[in-house]
Amino acid sequence: MLRMETIQYNLPQNRIPRAWYNLAADLPKPLAPPLHPGTLQPIGPDDLTPLFPMALILQEVSQEREIEIPDPVRQVYAQWRPSPLFRARRLEKALDTPAKIYYKYEGVSPAGSHKPNTAVAQAYYNKIEGTKRLCTETGAGQWGSALAMACAFFGLECKVYMVRVSYDQKPYRRALMEAFGASVTASPSVETECGRAILAEFPHTNGSLGIAISEAVEVAAKDPNTKYALGSVLNHVLLHQTVIGLEAMEQMALAGDEPDVLVGCTGGGSNFAGLVFPYLGKKIKGETSARVVAVEPAACPSLTKGHFAYDFGDTGHLTPLVKMHTLGSTFIPPGIHAGGLRYHGMAPLVSHARDLGLIEATSVQQLDAFAAGIQFARAEGIIPAPEANHAVAGAIAEALKCKAEGQGRTILFNLCGHGHFDMQSYINYQAGLLENYDYPAEEIAMALAGLPAVG
Amino acid sequence: MLRMETIQYNLPQNRIPRAWYNLAADLPKPLAPPLHPGTLQPIGPDDLTPLFPMALILQEVSQEREIEIPDPVRQVYAQWRPSPLFRARRLEKALDTPAKIYYKYEGVSPAGSHKPNTAVAQAYYNKIEGTKRLCTETGAGQWGSALAMACAFFGLECKVYMVRVSYDQKPYRRALMEAFGASVTASPSVETECGRAILAEFPHTNGSLGIAISEAVEVAAKDPNTKYALGSVLNHVLLHQTVIGLEAMEQMALAGDEPDVLVGCTGGGSNFAGLVFPYLGKKIKGETSARVVAVEPAACPSLTKGHFAYDFGDTGHLTPLVKMHTLGSTFIPPGIHAGGLRYHGMAPLVSHARDLGLIEATSVQQLDAFAAGIQFARAEGIIPAPEANHAVAGAIAEALKCKAEGQGRTILFNLCGHGHFDMQSYINYQAGLLENYDYPAEEIAMALAGLPAVG
Repeated sequence: MLRMETIQYNLPQNRIPRAWYNLAADLPKPLAPPLHPGTLQPIGPDDLTPLFPMALILQEVSQEREIEIPDPVRQVYAQWRPSPLFRARRLEKALDTPAKIYYKYEGVSPAGSHKPNTAVAQAYYNKIEGTKRLCTETGAGQWGSALAMACAFFGLECKVYMVRVSYDQKPYRRALMEAFGASVTASPSVETECGRAILAEFPHTNGSLGIAISEAVEVAAKDPNTKYALGSVLNHVLLHQTVIGLEAMEQMALAGDEPDVLVGCTGGGSNFAGLVFPYLGKKIKGETSARVVAVEPAACPSLTKGHFAYDFGDTGHLTPLVKMHTLGSTFIPPGIHAGGLRYHGMAPLVSHARDLGLIEATSVQQLDAFAAGIQFARAEGIIPAPEANHAVAGAIAEALKCKAEGQGRTILFNLCGHGHFDMQSYINYQAGLLENYDYPAEEIAMALAGLPAVG
Repeated sequence: MLRMETIQYNLPQNRIPRAWYNLAADLPKPLAPPLHPGTLQPIGPDDLTPLFPMALILQEVSQEREIEIPDPVRQVYAQWRPSPLFRARRLEKALDTPAKIYYKYEGVSPAGSHKPNTAVAQAYYNKIEGTKRLCTETGAGQWGSALAMACAFFGLECKVYMVRVSYDQKPYRRALMEAFGASVTASPSVETECGRAILAEFPHTNGSLGIAISEAVEVAAKDPNTKYALGSVLNHVLLHQTVIGLEAMEQMALAGDEPDVLVGCTGGGSNFAGLVFPYLGKKIKGETSARVVAVEPAACPSLTKGHFAYDFGDTGHLTPLVKMHTLGSTFIPPGIHAGGLRYHGMAPLVSHARDLGLIEATSVQQLDAFAAGIQFARAEGIIPAPEANHAVAGAIAEALKCKAEGQGRTILFNLCGHGHFDMQSYINYQAGLLENYDYPAEEIAMALAGLPAVG
């Protein structure tokens, strides 16, 4: 009889973290403040009240290390949290690497990604502060379906502006949001001033997250019963995701291992931050020397080719300016299939961590990301989301480096979601229809030249 | 601070069952033997060796109560087993019922349903007996993707005949099988004698499981390196699924509850058997008096309107005859979206249990099944497979009966898979494009009149 090898490290329901971890409390240098889009002066909480409930505004600027997770939020988390931590033993064998590869799997949430970690919290705080409707944007649809589900749980209406290219490529995602009772519109749309202006100029545009954010913000700002919800980038969103890393630390201890390398994919930065911020807190205190690697698409290389500067979060310039790695808010990325990574900017906290030298960044081409995803699926069974394929590719690259060097390091990556609603991209990949994109340096330079002259 | 309610009852990896439970050992009256399609005499193990490895043939006729699960199979199970058992507290509140509703969730497997429980076992036994390729059919695609995944894990080739209507309706399922490395062909196809004969007579047929089985069996019978694998109906398949009920018993004990009513959906019978057979073993011994309810689609009502008689398992009459509830092997069901339930027969063991009065059966219309699925998704977050919607509808009906009677019974149902690859059916449902089907009594009578005169 063979000895069974442990491949799944699980925690019971009562080990769901009781508090989120706030990296801001441990930063050696504070974040630059957000600026008002009109006055270009630092904004106060009151400037944000048309868009967010006060609890989230306070979290956005909090310096507390631990912020308690309300029990009704933990109660919903209990449906899929603590999420499993896997040892990828079959992938290790397939790669013939001396590395140990672990992955935290967020695809077990009912919406299929890490996004419900913040969607549930945002819906909860809005509900108790009297919001009737939440309005948001979605790229790949992971965020939109998470918020639609959270709104169904808490009895809120939900309106989603879905980036046109995803709306057309991913009818199943839209159907899921509608099954949860949400109303979904392709963006840019004729429903908003911002959408109409973009359509007048670019009638055949694929859309972008930057445009869809403008539409959702515009609607929320004009309707006192509607608030806005964002699925990434903001401090409070990244905060909510830290349950991933907090659980992972406990699970890695169960496995008797410590990560030498942490890997996550980055679009807006939230799944990456969720895994790595608790580890960065330890790194700042000198309690770990783990390398921390952000993997982004070569087609939308904000961390590797953008500037660290003040910029708008949206294309319509309705949001505050934040200091972040950006390709310029006018940047409309190519229609790659990792829709959730098609954003011109990077979360200010992730950008700041990069600026402080706490993290590294690398980029991956679309075809390499899908090749990694297929290899992962055949070894581990799970078909990753196109976004998550970037993390898989990053982890495989690290494992192969271990093999080349004869070093048995421990790699931990975040598998932030499954690709069940993204199979059209696998169909296109397997049919040879996908391309790599090297974003032309001169176009990036042009977009960056247009950055606002502040900060 | 609220008190957290437990909603997920989990077991650690070392609680994966060590043996499958074989209901045949406890039956008060033995199963009728399968008959050779040529001689109509009881078949022996040798008749099946062209199709199956000997280990599975022996399991098919075993009278042992417990059959040990090989460690390499348990090792693969460990990626998603023990699967979670949930208390559907939000659904209970939405229904305002005094009933407690529990569900065992098999959608956590990487292929998204209960099917890998047997796919992994079948691939393993074939691998150790030297099979190079497995050939099978699939309806909705749940089984085909499970077998494709299991073959990828064990290094076997995989060939899948996919029922035409599903092949056309579910490109994402096909893409998943192809991502795992399987070769997928729409059935009926021109690749087999049986397929060509059907196409000559019905060039525009939707296909059926009965036809696709004929094609897969024909290919396996003709190639010594290829064996056949079936995803339901057979005794050894149902055996492998009993991990579901064995785990559920332990989890219900954790929850401190005993089911009064067990509910599952039935097509070929395997997910239903997986949950309920361990309980039927107790029922036969007088250790439980739980009601056990099979829910089937009104469009394919084998248990509620079929005959309990000897019939072929396939349309081409290549398989042995088994005694089962059947609508006749010439029955081609309407193209309802619960593709996994479109089969003319019912597993002999499930049919036998019905004949012995151990289980009840009821049928559900397509529109009612989808309405139940949407209600479930908005309460619990998980979007069920169209097949599983039948079990959800059955469980909700039981819960509403409890409400009407003011009785607080405990209901346990099997949520055998998610609907992530079946969203087109939800799109059609929400667009009002789906219909109910009352299968005309005279057509059933005609198909039944053609049953072979044996047994």
